[in-house]
Amino acid sequence: MTKNGATQSKQDKIWEALDRFRIEIPSWGFANTGTRFGKFVQHAAATSIEEKFADAGEVNRLTGASPTVALHVLWDVPNGTADVEKIRALEKQHGVKSGSINPNLFQSQEYKFGSIANPSAEVRKVALGHLLESVEIGRALGTRDLSIWVSDGSNYPGTQSISRRIGWMEEVLGAMHAATSEGQRLLIEYKPFEPAFYHTDIADWGMALHLAQKVGPRAKVLVDTGHHYPGTNIEQIVAWLLYVDALGGFHFNDRKYADDDLTLGSIDPYQVFRIFHEILSAPAAATEGIAYMIDQSHNLKGKMEAMVQSVVTAQELFARAAMIDREALTVLQDECRLIEAEELFRDSFWTDVRPMVRAWREARGLPADPLQQLRDSGYVDRIARERAQRNRSAVSSYA
Amino acid sequence: MTKNGATQSKQDKIWEALDRFRIEIPSWGFANTGTRFGKFVQHAAATSIEEKFADAGEVNRLTGASPTVALHVLWDVPNGTADVEKIRALEKQHGVKSGSINPNLFQSQEYKFGSIANPSAEVRKVALGHLLESVEIGRALGTRDLSIWVSDGSNYPGTQSISRRIGWMEEVLGAMHAATSEGQRLLIEYKPFEPAFYHTDIADWGMALHLAQKVGPRAKVLVDTGHHYPGTNIEQIVAWLLYVDALGGFHFNDRKYADDDLTLGSIDPYQVFRIFHEILSAPAAATEGIAYMIDQSHNLKGKMEAMVQSVVTAQELFARAAMIDREALTVLQDECRLIEAEELFRDSFWTDVRPMVRAWREARGLPADPLQQLRDSGYVDRIARERAQRNRSAVSSYA
Amino acid sequence: MTKNGATQSKQDKIWEALDRFRIEIPSWGFANTGTRFGKFVQHAAATSIEEKFADAGEVNRLTGASPTVALHVLWDVPNGTADVEKIRALEKQHGVKSGSINPNLFQSQEYKFGSIANPSAEVRKVALGHLLESVEIGRALGTRDLSIWVSDGSNYPGTQSISRRIGWMEEVLGAMHAATSEGQRLLIEYKPFEPAFYHTDIADWGMALHLAQKVGPRAKVLVDTGHHYPGTNIEQIVAWLLYVDALGGFHFNDRKYADDDLTLGSIDPYQVFRIFHEILSAPAAATEGIAYMIDQSHNLKGKMEAMVQSVVTAQELFARAAMIDREALTVLQDECRLIEAEELFRDSFWTDVRPMVRAWREARGLPADPLQQLRDSGYVDRIARERAQRNRSAVSSYA
Amino acid sequence: MTKNGATQSKQDKIWEALDRFRIEIPSWGFANTGTRFGKFVQHAAATSIEEKFADAGEVNRLTGASPTVALHVLWDVPNGTADVEKIRALEKQHGVKSGSINPNLFQSQEYKFGSIANPSAEVRKVALGHLLESVEIGRALGTRDLSIWVSDGSNYPGTQSISRRIGWMEEVLGAMHAATSEGQRLLIEYKPFEPAFYHTDIADWGMALHLAQKVGPRAKVLVDTGHHYPGTNIEQIVAWLLYVDALGGFHFNDRKYADDDLTLGSIDPYQVFRIFHEILSAPAAATEGIAYMIDQSHNLKGKMEAMVQSVVTAQELFARAAMIDREALTVLQDECRLIEAEELFRDSFWTDVRPMVRAWREARGLPADPLQQLRDSGYVDRIARERAQRNRSAVSSYA
Repeated sequence: MTKNGATQSKQDKIWEALDRFRIEIPSWGFANTGTRFGKFVQHAAATSIEEKFADAGEVNRLTGASPTVALHVLWDVPNGTADVEKIRALEKQHGVKSGSINPNLFQSQEYKFGSIANPSAEVRKVALGHLLESVEIGRALGTRDLSIWVSDGSNYPGTQSISRRIGWMEEVLGAMHAATSEGQRLLIEYKPFEPAFYHTDIADWGMALHLAQKVGPRAKVLVDTGHHYPGTNIEQIVAWLLYVDALGGFHFNDRKYADDDLTLGSIDPYQVFRIFHEILSAPAAATEGIAYMIDQSHNLKGKMEAMVQSVVTAQELFARAAMIDREALTVLQDECRLIEAEELFRDSFWTDVRPMVRAWREARGLPADPLQQLRDSGYVDRIARERAQRNRSAVSSYA
Repeated sequence: MTKNGATQSKQDKIWEALDRFRIEIPSWGFANTGTRFGKFVQHAAATSIEEKFADAGEVNRLTGASPTVALHVLWDVPNGTADVEKIRALEKQHGVKSGSINPNLFQSQEYKFGSIANPSAEVRKVALGHLLESVEIGRALGTRDLSIWVSDGSNYPGTQSISRRIGWMEEVLGAMHAATSEGQRLLIEYKPFEPAFYHTDIADWGMALHLAQKVGPRAKVLVDTGHHYPGTNIEQIVAWLLYVDALGGFHFNDRKYADDDLTLGSIDPYQVFRIFHEILSAPAAATEGIAYMIDQSHNLKGKMEAMVQSVVTAQELFARAAMIDREALTVLQDECRLIEAEELFRDSFWTDVRPMVRAWREARGLPADPLQQLRDSGYVDRIARERAQRNRSAVSSYA
Repeated sequence: MTKNGATQSKQDKIWEALDRFRIEIPSWGFANTGTRFGKFVQHAAATSIEEKFADAGEVNRLTGASPTVALHVLWDVPNGTADVEKIRALEKQHGVKSGSINPNLFQSQEYKFGSIANPSAEVRKVALGHLLESVEIGRALGTRDLSIWVSDGSNYPGTQSISRRIGWMEEVLGAMHAATSEGQRLLIEYKPFEPAFYHTDIADWGMALHLAQKVGPRAKVLVDTGHHYPGTNIEQIVAWLLYVDALGGFHFNDRKYADDDLTLGSIDPYQVFRIFHEILSAPAAATEGIAYMIDQSHNLKGKMEAMVQSVVTAQELFARAAMIDREALTVLQDECRLIEAEELFRDSFWTDVRPMVRAWREARGLPADPLQQLRDSGYVDRIARERAQRNRSAVSSYA
Repeated sequence: MTKNGATQSKQDKIWEALDRFRIEIPSWGFANTGTRFGKFVQHAAATSIEEKFADAGEVNRLTGASPTVALHVLWDVPNGTADVEKIRALEKQHGVKSGSINPNLFQSQEYKFGSIANPSAEVRKVALGHLLESVEIGRALGTRDLSIWVSDGSNYPGTQSISRRIGWMEEVLGAMHAATSEGQRLLIEYKPFEPAFYHTDIADWGMALHLAQKVGPRAKVLVDTGHHYPGTNIEQIVAWLLYVDALGGFHFNDRKYADDDLTLGSIDPYQVFRIFHEILSAPAAATEGIAYMIDQSHNLKGKMEAMVQSVVTAQELFARAAMIDREALTVLQDECRLIEAEELFRDSFWTDVRPMVRAWREARGLPADPLQQLRDSGYVDRIARERAQRNRSAVSSYA
């Protein structure tokens, strides 16, 4: 193939990849958040489900890659299925659909010692009730995924029975799975620590996988890139989950220390590239259902700007990974020609895909530079003015 | 020496150690706290400075080892020196004195991008103003220590100049030091991450030590046992700080992962024992000014119970470390008789000191079992009844 | 129950626990070892299988708790089943039996890019051959366990296909499993890194469990306490493996940073106690087959002394865990009475079991203080004299 | 400025940066190395000082960026100053000069319990003797830097006195410093663990800095990028060392877990970029003396290929960092415009500098693609043939 031919081919790969890459954005990513030490309130933050849909719609208009918005049951759908009609209207109005449904098993006072792993049968029943309601909401909205994050655990050795809590989780999640319909999926997330600091009931992918396999075929594992011990090879876990056909999706964010919830690719972009490579190396059947989702808590960056920046970064890193010549790579891997394999692999990482991504945007009728377009549009200034008063009240009630 | 003689000697060492061991308790340890995911409200939690002093007084009555209470300027002394008279009255009423003064450089909205390391000279001035007020409060209350935790940092590479921020911190802390009087000390704390997740301006003991040595002789380093990277040998840092005569004190708590803020000795009691050993191995001159302080965020354990439990645990681990025959140990260390040295060292760790500590308590007119005595006294039930309404409102305003 | 009754009961629990607790010692624990930076040669180190059996027999005579010795195929059984007769004779001579059989998949030059996960079918065949020979040896010696540590992995992103290597491992381990007889077990070990530094093919318990469940019912997971990421809650993994009936055994050692291979309980004794608690909390059926094994690389401590010290430490920590009143604990756990549960739990940890263990030793006709008895016996001096020349040659060939 | 103008300017920055960037290569990087689990012998590995100089000369011919080679006293200069004449001849023959001198304080049997921190005054004297001889060698060869890595430490709590060992190190390093001449420098390296696993005497930059400042003005700190706890912000340490004018140089390598000694930039290239940014942000006076050195243990990659690859990667990452518009960045940092600052910062990281670096190579008369040129030259094949026999013997003596 001529050099031009090869270049053409790279562009084809990138365009094809971008055409199918979609990443969901979380409704809570537009609201004010903070650390346990405080919250820095932004005037442009969304204060209602309406504003969240408006913001999500704007991000999708700018990027063309985020047509769904993850909903948080407690904060976005407080009245359960009674809210469905309102949400459908918002979907139409803003051109984005509801995405994954996120139950909340950590905030209510009764979950002090756990939700689905609580020693109290009564509390577990409350938790199951909330999960079943979430299944209902998902069905009513016609969405596919239910993302289950269980923050349960204990803070001190000896204070809870680790093994009995496994059984309780199996029961509750089994009952939830039984309530799902064809087309619904249960994504089980894992996290090693925080807010529980001695043991977390679903601490790693092995535990999440066991539960998913135990409760039924509609259950898969959800990988949050920030939920690992220091040093963990996340792309290897992704490869294993793909191998056993149990990878449900991702919560993307970045971290340097713990669950730092920084924006995607901001600390270790090479790692994101490697994760995408594992996915693109797997058989299509194992990967087509993967839910890519952003889940960050960027409490210093502007909400809208951070979200657009994250989507763009995800697209660029996905495009880089899409360029890898995996056939040639396989030959080099099989022959253990390490340096050649590594150089071929990272040649794609070092290639500046931005002009090609820009060309794709223009070809698809999208803004060439979404972040710049957001700035030029005055959107953030406008919502900051409109929402300032509501957000200011939030500050005072906080402090 | 006879075996009885040796036993006697162990008891002497323990009693002498307990007679001089004092550990400060934090006012905020009696108030409701939480993680970024929520707060589980306790009815018995203190809701005012009066209640905090009452609780601290009770802990001291039970343990005889916590005669001072750390104050948080923003929460406990909101009116500055105008509050001093009230606090003096509380000191008398409850039999505990004010301890270290803790400025707050993290909560105000203007500290979004830092306080004493903020690029804005104006914000740094505000921060300095708060620090100077804290010095005034300390002087007015007659306390020795000002504990400075600087949460400043940045979340994303390239977004701040690490080195220029060093200079700004030197300036502000230098100005604060200049305002102190004879008898006051400035304790500079370090922490590797959280709430800043890319770089924290005072991230390790080396940075804290540089600042302490730069700003003046009244500045020392404050070691929070939860503020280290995984694996860090904390007792070695303690040994170095003692060696250079810069150890100001401790914030004690325990952790398994990050800054988990669990109760002292609950995860790795052997580490606390080793820290105490380093202190007890140093020349008296380098150690007599060490401020032992508890700083935990035990949001599931009862506040009063957790505090009593922590003081008792600290006493027992200090007593264990006090028993080590350091002269014999030095000989074994010098001759590199590893196993003998190790066995001698941990013989003290494995010795059950609880009966000896109990005997000391009785001899000093203290309850033999402080935790049991707290339960028997009905104190927690009473304050839970009295404070329930106030705490319940806190829940609703939170949720 | 009277206080005396309770004390009696504690002693009963401890004696019963000690009567059944056995921990295997590794033949390689008596030989000279080192770090990658060098090896400090000990004159008393064993230089042959005969000397290893002699040393192991001596440890068992002193402790009564280590009746088996783990063998390393490459180093101890270089001639395969042809060595069996000699080993049987050594077993009789020294009063210890052969324990687990340990194939070696990391040392041969052909394993440069992996053994059972090597892209080369030829190399995988070599590896399988060695594994099958190990099965033969185990059968011939009448031992139960084959411990499989696979150090395979890669050092650089992109240089190997993580997922294809999973398939290769399944094939080879499947073939090995097929060759085992009733009564043999295949224990699959995991390790996050070292000697591979980008990805290790069997990196965590989830991967080991998948392989064990895939290859057949005689395969179980082997937990090496040093093979985890920083912070990992090992006792939780133990609880999960027990829950799914897949815990095969342990390689015990301690660590502060990475796979430091320090002696058991030397850094975090509370963790070992918690691991034993999980085991003692599980149904007897799930725990009776657990193989407790020491696997350390104590290159500074004397080999014999370190081994005796480790066995004694294991016994004492097991005895502590055996004392826990698990019925009472369950009640407190169910009622979420955290501090009471924690205090009950660690009351056993803080109890000085050494006098009770000593009494047990004497009642069983064993030396009251094995470490002291070893010193008094002159055994180490004698072997040091006898083996000095052989070890000295080892030094010179090394340097 | 026009767009062309800006492009021109980027190229100018890169060329200027490449013209002054030099990175030293270690003699031991050409020899066979391994992990503690074994060594995979390469036929092309250097087996003598002559071969090391030949290989280093070849790397410099290919890259034009590595004109000096670090020497290891024990392995390369075993006869002390008596070897100087031979080395001078090799320098001339191969066109590379001797670089830093590396004493060895870890391999000799007498250093079992430490070298300069050993409790034995006699052993410390031996260690000092070796250090003084190294100073002599450096002076005789006319090199500037002496790189001191002290692997001393202890493996078990209580077995050594951490604080007394500080004093011993001060004494020995002080005596070494006193023996240096104008123009010589003492670079003190730190490392948190390995081969010592409980405490390492010089564990972090704070300890190294104290020693450097204590012993004299010619002592600086040496940063090995693999010698940090998980998560450590290395570029921040670099910024602090520059701030206090104590940064002596670097040992570059990469890691995912511990001191993995992988090739530079292979795991986290963004981190290397950030380190270079801190250096390029500092005043020229603080940075001109920085010694950039490679120190890796690439035991699977070909030695020559890995070294060329590392030098090229270092050049490219340095070029990327050189492109940053630091004036514009400072404005954005001061105004806390996070996303704009971050985007400006990483725009340089994402720019594909390879064509510009290639152009620079051609303009300087160097091979456009050093790695390809190495392959085309047949150099590695030739040395593999010539050295095969010698390396094969090394294998057999090892196994």
